Amino acid sequence: VIHMITPTYSCWTQKADLTRLSQTLMHIKNLHWIVVEDSDNKTGLVARFLKKCNLKYTHLNVRTKKELQRNSKEPVWRKSRGVEQRNLGLNWLRRNHMTMPGKGKGDVVYFGDDDNTYDIELFDEIRATRKLSVWPVGICGGLRWEGPVCDDKGTVVDWHRSWAKLRPFPIDFAGFAIKLDVVLQFSTAEINPDSRIGWLESDFLSQMVQPSDAEGRASNCKKVLVWHTRTEKPKTKDEERLIAQGQPSDPLIET
Amino acid sequence: VIHMITPTYSCWTQKADLTRLSQTLMHIKNLHWIVVEDSDNKTGLVARFLKKCNLKYTHLNVRTKKELQRNSKEPVWRKSRGVEQRNLGLNWLRRNHMTMPGKGKGDVVYFGDDDNTYDIELFDEIRATRKLSVWPVGICGGLRWEGPVCDDKGTVVDWHRSWAKLRPFPIDFAGFAIKLDVVLQFSTAEINPDSRIGWLESDFLSQMVQPSDAEGRASNCKKVLVWHTRTEKPKTKDEERLIAQGQPSDPLIET
Ligand SMILES: O=c1ccn([C@@H]2O[C@H](COP(=O)(O)OP(=O)(O)O)[C@@H](O)[C@H]2O)c(=O)[nH]1
Ligand SMILES: O=c1ccn([C@@H]2O[C@H](COP(=O)(O)OP(=O)(O)O)[C@@H](O)[C@H]2O)c(=O)[nH]1
Ligand SMILES: [Mn+2]
Ligand SMILES: [Mn+2]
Repeated sequence: VIHMITPTYSCWTQKADLTRLSQTLMHIKNLHWIVVEDSDNKTGLVARFLKKCNLKYTHLNVRTKKELQRNSKEPVWRKSRGVEQRNLGLNWLRRNHMTMPGKGKGDVVYFGDDDNTYDIELFDEIRATRKLSVWPVGICGGLRWEGPVCDDKGTVVDWHRSWAKLRPFPIDFAGFAIKLDVVLQFSTAEINPDSRIGWLESDFLSQMVQPSDAEGRASNCKKVLVWHTRTEKPKTKDEERLIAQGQPSDPLIET
Repeated sequence: VIHMITPTYSCWTQKADLTRLSQTLMHIKNLHWIVVEDSDNKTGLVARFLKKCNLKYTHLNVRTKKELQRNSKEPVWRKSRGVEQRNLGLNWLRRNHMTMPGKGKGDVVYFGDDDNTYDIELFDEIRATRKLSVWPVGICGGLRWEGPVCDDKGTVVDWHRSWAKLRPFPIDFAGFAIKLDVVLQFSTAEINPDSRIGWLESDFLSQMVQPSDAEGRASNCKKVLVWHTRTEKPKTKDEERLIAQGQPSDPLIET
């Protein structure tokens, strides 16, 4: 089973992003989707959405702590997003893996944000994970792609990146998968919201594995099967004007 | 058969957008995907992509005329995008529908941009089209949703929109589907790149149909099944720096 942990939060594009992601996941066998809302309570929108989408899922929620929330004036790279949600997903797995149907030696954990783009072939690479798999991520780290450079045996011989070159694992969350067994063995490993900018992944992985544990996949890291796309934030000015005029878009129509 | 016409152009997010869209379309039966590149020649990237994705498709190309191209300094709403590509798709259908396998009375034309988000349920609504179907589009026209307002028989009684209120069809290309027969009957109808801002759809549809022909679908227009999402343009500064240093992201790795 692949356990895919997806943080998500209320915004205009949330249902669209979850919809197209779910339609990709519908192609994948033996997937368990752990959707973690950044909210004090589970929302009806996400609950209804998950119920309808016919995937095996777990619905969780945890609100990002005040001091970690980004205010809309701060640049987007100043605060990490999705940290406490990913940690809740990890800890849920640690507490519940024993009672999960179909739990086997092959279980793998993958972090998949709601607005990234996943080629369905990626999931074959995830499934093949022995300890830690890595691969390049498209449109990431300021580059056309960022990630491992491998020899023709899949041994990582270098990392292609443009900044924070000292990172032991210079990759995005979308660029690796880790065996569930490893996450269970290191039962206190977690993502640290106080990690330096860009070091979240490295600080997290360093608690469990070493760079030499990384196996390069996706045709020895020659194929990009996941892209760190971002969905543009829509302008809400016109809607606000209509709201002020008492004529909002019918709120009974869910978007 | 649903003929879905999708303009597309070379950019960092193109393959990602086409990938996730194709994974949605893989769920749809009897779909014919007409992909029209905005380019002087068909690119290898799109040709390889289409060959691999196991959909029934037609690959076309036409480069947008110089005077219609937007320079990167102009605001995005100043020039329409995808106009000549959609027209080529229409004219291809007019020239080739007779020889298409499976061509039947039920054929419908839909315009689906590569970065929108489509719920697979939308295609049932498209397929049900008799002459002209309409429905609300999420995150569109500056609003949470823009589109028709219907009574409980699906008759359009109003349009919800925030600007250009005089438009006879105040909807986005993603918000309607039209019977192929109608497109064949009005064999010179086309999208006019000189239409006023926001009037492309209205000027196009007015050549063939009247507002009273529009049937509201998607639960009498109470459901949003398509969103006018946009994929954020990535910053390319770091890549440019590496290129200047003679160390670009390996160009043999396709993204
Ligand atoms: O306040 C927020 C903002 C984002 N996210 C989620 O955290 C992940 C990463 O956020 P985002 O995609 O905005 O960050 P990026 O890496 O694209 O800058 C995504 O799955 C979001 O849905 C969240 O839980 N709370
Ligand atoms: O120079 C361009 C820019 C865009 N497009 C395509 O035209 C459609 C509409 O463009 P875009 O999504 O950028 O416009 P929007 O309506 O989102 O502003 C999309 O399918 C694009 O791939 C194109 O063919 N040439
Ligand atoms: Mn993201
Ligand atoms: Mn678009």
